[in-house]
Amino acid sequence: MKRRTLMYGLAGAAVLAAAGPVLAQADALPSWNDGPVKQSLLDFVARTTTMGSRDWVPVPERIACFDNDGTLWTEQPIYFQFAFALDRVKAMVARHPEWRTREPFRSVLADDRAALAHLGEKGLIEIIAATHTGLTTEAFSKEVLDWLATARHPRFKRPYTDLVYQPMIELLALLRANQFKTFIVSGGGIEFMRPWTQHIYGIPPEQVVGSSGVTKFELRADGTPVLVKEPRVQFIDDGPGKPEGINQFIGRRPVLTFGNSDGDQQMLQWTAAGTGARFMGLVHHTDAVREYAYDRESPVGKLDKAWDEAVRRKWAIVDMKTDWKVIYPFEPR
Amino acid sequence: MKRRTLMYGLAGAAVLAAAGPVLAQADALPSWNDGPVKQSLLDFVARTTTMGSRDWVPVPERIACFDNDGTLWTEQPIYFQFAFALDRVKAMVARHPEWRTREPFRSVLADDRAALAHLGEKGLIEIIAATHTGLTTEAFSKEVLDWLATARHPRFKRPYTDLVYQPMIELLALLRANQFKTFIVSGGGIEFMRPWTQHIYGIPPEQVVGSSGVTKFELRADGTPVLVKEPRVQFIDDGPGKPEGINQFIGRRPVLTFGNSDGDQQMLQWTAAGTGARFMGLVHHTDAVREYAYDRESPVGKLDKAWDEAVRRKWAIVDMKTDWKVIYPFEPR
Repeated sequence: MKRRTLMYGLAGAAVLAAAGPVLAQADALPSWNDGPVKQSLLDFVARTTTMGSRDWVPVPERIACFDNDGTLWTEQPIYFQFAFALDRVKAMVARHPEWRTREPFRSVLADDRAALAHLGEKGLIEIIAATHTGLTTEAFSKEVLDWLATARHPRFKRPYTDLVYQPMIELLALLRANQFKTFIVSGGGIEFMRPWTQHIYGIPPEQVVGSSGVTKFELRADGTPVLVKEPRVQFIDDGPGKPEGINQFIGRRPVLTFGNSDGDQQMLQWTAAGTGARFMGLVHHTDAVREYAYDRESPVGKLDKAWDEAVRRKWAIVDMKTDWKVIYPFEPR
Repeated sequence: MKRRTLMYGLAGAAVLAAAGPVLAQADALPSWNDGPVKQSLLDFVARTTTMGSRDWVPVPERIACFDNDGTLWTEQPIYFQFAFALDRVKAMVARHPEWRTREPFRSVLADDRAALAHLGEKGLIEIIAATHTGLTTEAFSKEVLDWLATARHPRFKRPYTDLVYQPMIELLALLRANQFKTFIVSGGGIEFMRPWTQHIYGIPPEQVVGSSGVTKFELRADGTPVLVKEPRVQFIDDGPGKPEGINQFIGRRPVLTFGNSDGDQQMLQWTAAGTGARFMGLVHHTDAVREYAYDRESPVGKLDKAWDEAVRRKWAIVDMKTDWKVIYPFEPR
């Protein structure tokens, strides 16, 4: 509840002070520890939104893009969308008895984590296709919300949407209060994210870029038009796909981009190559106690080449353990 | 200039009166003749934006989608993007001498209108691919703007961007003043439209949905990242592709949609099938003197099945000749 109040408060302030930066009265980023990353974020917002500043950015150009998994919410021990897919295999097996003996479904049903860890891309795509298609976009959206209402994260025993990063929620709100338009640019499925991003992040569906399958328009026998999700990939929004997706969906180059893995490297490069003030940031998962610690060797959210480039080019690197006072909104403050 | 002033005036008013409809002091749609279509538009805006009204639409759901060719600007005697492509064939032939003897380029270079009229989809795609790809997105954007600055419409002897419909510009402004988010949903190329839609329609690039080719991210030898336009179709935003594109890019169902041809029929059906207040509109080109007159038999902008459905379902049909006081912004008033 506190988070909501903060967001609305900042949004209201923006209306009153369109001409200059809105850096909250007390502290615009209260869940960030004082340090170079927090300072560079506050400086960037001030420089880009102060009229007359050399780095001023016109309002329509204030485009900020955020990866989702590992940047706005947790992505361990497996991507949350994959947890959704596994649960759907179990929920759907009554209608697909053949799955009991057919891989990769057999391993899913047996909770064979070792086998699942070595699924490979082909097995992964097969599970996503089987659980995400053959229904209308509206039915799928309902499945996502129903799952989020009941599923619990295996370690934190909380709804997955509780596992968003409070410091990033504050950063999104600060940017919007300063008339930045905030976008998600995620390798995750666009239709998996859109049903809840407005409520959780304040990011409306039309500002969510992600991977997608083909949908097909059909007129039902009674004349009702529907969009049916088909088992064909339309677009993979990862790696080089991220700047391609930004171009396709947004048509402008962002001035601020945040990611956390090698899948975000090209999006950061594309952002950095623009003219004028830029902010490139990476979240480094360094806190095994409060969240998770992983980077170069992780199968999920591998951070290796992008890290090296960030160090070399002096992009901001968030050290979760030292930069973030709290990780999740539910932590006591 | 008058148009600009109107738009800014209405936008300013929106900030002051967020709670109720903004129907301009004098006349919000001055270029529309009084009649059932104008009245139904004003009624729709009032009903959907008056708090407490049974038809009230929450601000985030106020999504309005407009076709471009034949709905916001003229599409005769050929789609303007096709005129651009033909001019580019001529501009590029020095680098492609083989085009002088190879179809369909030979016909383009010879201005053989009869042959061009029977190009077919294959020839059309070949010309678009040859003239729209192999360069970066930024270079292409510059080509579009350079062409618009010099090219003239064969009949009106004016820049193509002068040939936008003043009544629709007013409708876009009225909707935005009432906190609708206005989108283009066009069969035209997304990268052909985005360089100028903000300036001409007040619609930013991220609210332009259209057909697109694949772009490919590349790191140049000096480390500069670019997006190169490839000769492969990514998405055709026409017919059933329009609701599919709306789902893909916007992720919400529009409450108001305007088109002018059978290519808009599915988008109108998709809009009509939502719950709550809806507005479906078609522009019928009935004015051969001030613009063009065409419908069921036209190879460009054919209006046949969508017209029948509009009549049957009582969707709004704009009769250009009687409903519009002026067509273009440059006409004397």
